[in-house]
Amino acid sequence: MKLLVVGSVAFDAVRTPRGSVDRMVGGSATYFSVAASYFTQVRVVGVVGEDFADEHHQVFLERGVCTEGLERVSGKTFFWSGEYSANLNDCRTLATDLNVFASFQPKLPLPYRRTPFLFLGNIDPELQRHVQQQMEHPQLVAGDTMNFWIEGKRKELEATLCNIGVLIINDSEARLLSGEHNLVKAARAIRALGPPTVVIKRGDNGATLFRDGEVFSTPALPLEEVYDPTGAGDSFAGGFMGYIAAQTPEGTQPIPGVLRRAVIYGSVMGSFAVEHFGLERLRRLTRPEIDARYQEFRQLTRFE
Amino acid sequence: MKLLVVGSVAFDAVRTPRGSVDRMVGGSATYFSVAASYFTQVRVVGVVGEDFADEHHQVFLERGVCTEGLERVSGKTFFWSGEYSANLNDCRTLATDLNVFASFQPKLPLPYRRTPFLFLGNIDPELQRHVQQQMEHPQLVAGDTMNFWIEGKRKELEATLCNIGVLIINDSEARLLSGEHNLVKAARAIRALGPPTVVIKRGDNGATLFRDGEVFSTPALPLEEVYDPTGAGDSFAGGFMGYIAAQTPEGTQPIPGVLRRAVIYGSVMGSFAVEHFGLERLRRLTRPEIDARYQEFRQLTRFE
Repeated sequence: MKLLVVGSVAFDAVRTPRGSVDRMVGGSATYFSVAASYFTQVRVVGVVGEDFADEHHQVFLERGVCTEGLERVSGKTFFWSGEYSANLNDCRTLATDLNVFASFQPKLPLPYRRTPFLFLGNIDPELQRHVQQQMEHPQLVAGDTMNFWIEGKRKELEATLCNIGVLIINDSEARLLSGEHNLVKAARAIRALGPPTVVIKRGDNGATLFRDGEVFSTPALPLEEVYDPTGAGDSFAGGFMGYIAAQTPEGTQPIPGVLRRAVIYGSVMGSFAVEHFGLERLRRLTRPEIDARYQEFRQLTRFE
Repeated sequence: MKLLVVGSVAFDAVRTPRGSVDRMVGGSATYFSVAASYFTQVRVVGVVGEDFADEHHQVFLERGVCTEGLERVSGKTFFWSGEYSANLNDCRTLATDLNVFASFQPKLPLPYRRTPFLFLGNIDPELQRHVQQQMEHPQLVAGDTMNFWIEGKRKELEATLCNIGVLIINDSEARLLSGEHNLVKAARAIRALGPPTVVIKRGDNGATLFRDGEVFSTPALPLEEVYDPTGAGDSFAGGFMGYIAAQTPEGTQPIPGVLRRAVIYGSVMGSFAVEHFGLERLRRLTRPEIDARYQEFRQLTRFE
């Protein structure tokens, strides 16, 4: 089943202890799309500037992602630059030039409006809502957000949360959103705001899914080399939603087993994302590699 | 099979956001013994002062722990006092009065010397070595250490590490000992120092076991209320070693399946330890409660 994502498409400059890249295609919708494309057909809604050339579109096209919703306007593409600390735990943002993203007004092409699965990437909650209003009865809506919106647009964010099925956020965002340090309490408080399912990403400590009467948790795959953590969370969301979209029959909700496996496939895609700079590793995967790593997660966590 | 532990027996004063206790029995050997006692017969080697009364001995006796090796000397028992931060992640030590522990020279009663399983709790590595030298071909030796010894008695610690089968330490200790931030590299570097198996405890992020060609990882049980983290790591070690001692036939080494289940039983005992102040929860458990929580870990982590 088709999967629609709305979010940022950007150029990134990244410096990590393993090296640096001055300019590469990035953005939350890009990582999400590429990760999800290994599971299902993806449609992307976003905006780029005149500097986003054919070669940059390739990252979507080579993965069969439909870019009909990727608007191109005059001006420059969103640019983000960041530098990671020696242990990769902290990232200092050096530049955030919104450029054409500042006036982004997502407009869904007509055929997109009936996409059964929707992921609202980390954009202004008003825009998230605006996208939702253009959709015709999506089967499942998931979303992401960040500290900036939690602090700056709380009311608008709560309106979005009322209408989504799954919120996928990281631990610090969950704590900020809920005002609870304890993640069990945080998840309950967030579920009370609307989403029946909350997935909390904990970086190299894994991920935990909370829903009614059920908790599922996985450690991350212990990796020896992490080149670049950029996009790991979006790749997680892409693997998670891509798998769900592929495995959930029309008109139904994902069953518990599918949600659990989706957390693992999300973790798999996140683990690949960090193995190279930007999208380098992610865009050159094969499905057998993905499934082999899924099996690695089974080996990692299995006990009788 | 019997299990011998050497380590500290203490009085603790603890302040956490949930309350405070002025004086209760604690110490690494105590938490370890009580946790392990649910799986196998435990012998404890340590030292207490004249203020350690019959009522305090009860914590061992009620759990069937043999205290023949618990020396009582003139002076006061080791006293530790600490205060946890609001989110329980940091602990500020308010007092460390070694008292009789300062001149502790572990002496093993004759019948103890043939105990098949040995756990060297977090004491001076010279004393750890001294204990090992008194033992007659133990089947499996595991150990713990801490920043204080890693920094202050590196050479002596390396001599201990040469002769143990399993090192059980937390993530910050693993990083300090190895000089590697990445835990895969840290575990490899530590294994190169001697112990074929390294278990890294990561607090509320779970635990990971590393051995030749195998990694096993579990998340922690998401707990809504944590009263007091004191002793959680020692309780983990007690559950881990207790289960191994119970499940490993004479003259053999633990099989991989037993090691994996031991990590889970360790996590189970750690999760109980933090549910109340000091040993309160741990000393009043039943084996069915322990096994039920083991099943909770299966529910938490299982996927097909």
